[in-house]
Amino acid sequence: MNFKVTVGLSNKHVHLSKEHIDILFGEGHELTPMKDLSQPGQFACEEKVDLVGPKRTINGVRILGPARKESQIEISFADGFTLGLKDIPVRDSGKLDGTPGIKLVGPKGEVEVDKGVIAAARHIHMHTSDAEKFGLKDKDTVKVRVGGPRGLTFDNVLIRVHDTYALDMHLDVEEGNAAGLSNCDEVEVIVE
Amino acid sequence: MNFKVTVGLSNKHVHLSKEHIDILFGEGHELTPMKDLSQPGQFACEEKVDLVGPKRTINGVRILGPARKESQIEISFADGFTLGLKDIPVRDSGKLDGTPGIKLVGPKGEVEVDKGVIAAARHIHMHTSDAEKFGLKDKDTVKVRVGGPRGLTFDNVLIRVHDTYALDMHLDVEEGNAAGLSNCDEVEVIVE
Repeated sequence: MNFKVTVGLSNKHVHLSKEHIDILFGEGHELTPMKDLSQPGQFACEEKVDLVGPKRTINGVRILGPARKESQIEISFADGFTLGLKDIPVRDSGKLDGTPGIKLVGPKGEVEVDKGVIAAARHIHMHTSDAEKFGLKDKDTVKVRVGGPRGLTFDNVLIRVHDTYALDMHLDVEEGNAAGLSNCDEVEVIVE
Repeated sequence: MNFKVTVGLSNKHVHLSKEHIDILFGEGHELTPMKDLSQPGQFACEEKVDLVGPKRTINGVRILGPARKESQIEISFADGFTLGLKDIPVRDSGKLDGTPGIKLVGPKGEVEVDKGVIAAARHIHMHTSDAEKFGLKDKDTVKVRVGGPRGLTFDNVLIRVHDTYALDMHLDVEEGNAAGLSNCDEVEVIVE
């Protein structure tokens, strides 16, 4: 059964481990929520860090909370080019083995992470009850069709199912722009 | 008949009219070819201009030659965001009615163009003999399939046929990155 889903476009951002929050923002620092995100419990923070690549630095990249088990730096291919990091791997969130590292600089310290830089694989979050309704399960892949002058059909869109997830598709800004999409636009999921 | 075509990714660039070359680089100035492009007779120039948008300036944007009848400024949606220009129209080359203007600054002068800023519509150049072979004609549209982890199928890919064209697909950098493509990669054209 095909269905519609709204799109959220992700700009570059960083998830931090508790250990790295301590180093970058000071021992015992708690992240300061600025704005709730579409996924329940997730929030954009007031805190930012600089990404120092081999070629250039990108200043003021926003932290998303809460703290995670491992730090993860989500950037676009264009950001990778700016930083001087080639062949940024396209990965599901949390799958960080063999990914490049980078230097993070915060107001209280800096840390050279040895992995964690990824381009997030395009994906759709959904609640367990959505998955049942649509006949899908965690780790399935679907196609997603977008209309308009920049119309296209994305393959390999990962389905992520959890009792804490809300129905929402995540693309990075380059994928969104390539398809002429803005935040909250609706697209069609094709279940074959 | 489906067929393969190689891809060229276009970064932001500017085509200039003779009048605007005179203003920006001095009366009677001739563009200096730096590198031939995939389309016969087209070349990247040594010359660059700054694009001054309502919000920010992008410095050092390359001129492509030779001179054209009208100046045309090809940028990505991300560039539009940087400049502070919203809703950049997706247009075929040369179709500039109703497109936004911008200020161009060169070493010898500046000019406020009243139109010409576009995101180039994805397209495939081909020689007349290619078009005959593939059963296509100028202004047809096709789909183009890209494999790999960022696999997708582009709709609305415009066919442009001329006796001076070489077979080549043009995407902007965001479209290329969204599909995980690099310059000279091969993609599959689907003729329905």
